[in-house]
Amino acid sequence: MDVLNDEAYMRLALQLAQSALGQTGINPVVGCVLVNDGRIVGMGAHLKRGQGHAEVLALQMAGEEARGSTAYVTLEPCSHHGKTPPCSNRLIEAGVRRVVVAATDPNPLVAGSGIARLREHGVDVTTGLLAEESERLNEAFVKYIVTRLPFVTMKTASTLDGRIAAKTGDSKWITSPASRAFVHTLRHRHQGIMVGVDTVIADDPQLSARGDVPAVQPVRIVADSQLRIPPGARVLSEQDRQPTILLASEQAPAERRAALEARGVTVLTCGDGPQVDLRLAMRQLGEREIGSILLEGGGRLNGAMLEQRLIDKMVLMFAPKIIGGGPAAPVNIDFAGFAKMADAIELDRLKVEQFGPDVCLTGYPMYKEEVPHVHGHH
Amino acid sequence: MDVLNDEAYMRLALQLAQSALGQTGINPVVGCVLVNDGRIVGMGAHLKRGQGHAEVLALQMAGEEARGSTAYVTLEPCSHHGKTPPCSNRLIEAGVRRVVVAATDPNPLVAGSGIARLREHGVDVTTGLLAEESERLNEAFVKYIVTRLPFVTMKTASTLDGRIAAKTGDSKWITSPASRAFVHTLRHRHQGIMVGVDTVIADDPQLSARGDVPAVQPVRIVADSQLRIPPGARVLSEQDRQPTILLASEQAPAERRAALEARGVTVLTCGDGPQVDLRLAMRQLGEREIGSILLEGGGRLNGAMLEQRLIDKMVLMFAPKIIGGGPAAPVNIDFAGFAKMADAIELDRLKVEQFGPDVCLTGYPMYKEEVPHVHGHH
Repeated sequence: MDVLNDEAYMRLALQLAQSALGQTGINPVVGCVLVNDGRIVGMGAHLKRGQGHAEVLALQMAGEEARGSTAYVTLEPCSHHGKTPPCSNRLIEAGVRRVVVAATDPNPLVAGSGIARLREHGVDVTTGLLAEESERLNEAFVKYIVTRLPFVTMKTASTLDGRIAAKTGDSKWITSPASRAFVHTLRHRHQGIMVGVDTVIADDPQLSARGDVPAVQPVRIVADSQLRIPPGARVLSEQDRQPTILLASEQAPAERRAALEARGVTVLTCGDGPQVDLRLAMRQLGEREIGSILLEGGGRLNGAMLEQRLIDKMVLMFAPKIIGGGPAAPVNIDFAGFAKMADAIELDRLKVEQFGPDVCLTGYPMYKEEVPHVHGHH
Repeated sequence: MDVLNDEAYMRLALQLAQSALGQTGINPVVGCVLVNDGRIVGMGAHLKRGQGHAEVLALQMAGEEARGSTAYVTLEPCSHHGKTPPCSNRLIEAGVRRVVVAATDPNPLVAGSGIARLREHGVDVTTGLLAEESERLNEAFVKYIVTRLPFVTMKTASTLDGRIAAKTGDSKWITSPASRAFVHTLRHRHQGIMVGVDTVIADDPQLSARGDVPAVQPVRIVADSQLRIPPGARVLSEQDRQPTILLASEQAPAERRAALEARGVTVLTCGDGPQVDLRLAMRQLGEREIGSILLEGGGRLNGAMLEQRLIDKMVLMFAPKIIGGGPAAPVNIDFAGFAKMADAIELDRLKVEQFGPDVCLTGYPMYKEEVPHVHGHH
């Protein structure tokens, strides 16, 4: 906060919101800062679904000093009675004089109504300050609230010759500890983590968020059309602590399904083809209130998800090394692909970062208009 | 030049040197700035092999004002009679009082002798200021002067899923105009540009430096073991303007060799195996005073050069797009590879740049101690 102005207070509110990424479930992250007579009198962030909203927590901290204050809120205050009373009412009742809002509510059913209510009660409202930053923080929420489909972030780690493992399958480790610490942070920030069963068979991963400090554990999701998952796989352990959802086809043997369900594992039926209908799978995961998924699949699952246009964001890590190995060494995204380079799927808003020696590219795939050729049954 | 000090003048000298990259052949690039009584009185850069050295040109500009001046030189002044008289003598004769040197001469036979001569004649000499920057500018010269082998920079352009073309072979264009302009600059800065004959057959490239302004044209080098190059290939045109060297095996048909030589093309015999002996090829190119090569090979040539440890530097451009295509879509470096990720060849001193939407990674491969398994005959 180098210069005292609206933007500096809103940046602080955004930081409060960002700090809660990963712990609000399908709810958005929201931050609020209350300022009165040149001093911060209250701060709050929505920390957990079903608990207090950012504005309410900030008002509690401010107490009587909320009267006549300015509230900086990263998301439009709600106007409807949900799990808590509407925040716009609370701001009005507390005597807040001015409200600065970053993003309006992405839910088209209620967008603008919180702001309208504030104005009806004489509150001075400014909107749109750092709106893009706020929307970026809530990109998963923005998709989910409109489509009820989870926002999918694909994460891969490749060598500079595009491999995610050696020809032997060995992949420990491609990226540095600094990169892997970032990946565990990504896991904390997504409600689900998804791989294909071939990855489970090859690597027996834990699929947990393991950083220097405890983290929120994502639901473990495995695309496993025929339920080939080994009974001793680590992802099947501790269902009480970290549930696992298997995505299977109706074709999968009933006795395997029964055995898995008896262990507390959820098996979702996603079509009756040889391969899981991924679009249907996403719809079912959305119905179960999984609003964000970190896809760490092998190349084929990543490719199938891309062909179905189910990937919203890509985090592509590159380690500065060359492994070689020809077709036996797998690539990060494996699918039939396009005949013309001009038809390639481009990434929008590319961000370049470095974690230790590794380079991390983040972007948003821009799908072309026409529906691509798709494999498998639907 | 924000602060007047030794470093600022040396940075200017480095800029003068850098500006001549690509036009000095196997000679180093060198810059010189002469400063007297608080004013720059002379500037020079070595511009062309066989012509004036940086110090001489700067002394000419300074005239009588060289007396009592300080000379900032990016490379140790020579002490031997080559194509021109030794620069250390010229500095002494002109009455230069102090000499600041960045890098010492990389030639172990003469390193330090220019500095010693200056000191013998009472000149105050400071060494090592921005030495690394100067050595980086002359990385090709530094290798060539010691080994007589060309410095090889491999350049590739890939999608984010590691492909250098679609499965159909279409590759126009992967990277942006900004990236391609940089590649033409790289061509200007290398004495040779090298591809495999399969690239010539597939793409019929010109292999010339084509920017917004005229450039120095590199010698065109094609690895073509059996001399399969099409007679109408564009790289065979205009031998008077831009010579072409084919690297062939003794196995190549004699009549094809004769026909090519009759057109003014140079054919070098590099071993008698089914594939060109690339190490022998580099030695022969070095003997022909080609001290730097930009390798723009297909994946297999790049891989073979890497297996032979002949690649000194890598410039890996990534366009933010996904093309797919399975094994039919070629990768940037294609070779048998390693069984363990821990054995991968790592890049040292990684640099990350952006050209338009593309990301450019530059680094120096660090080869492991043991000699790798190598294909082909030697």
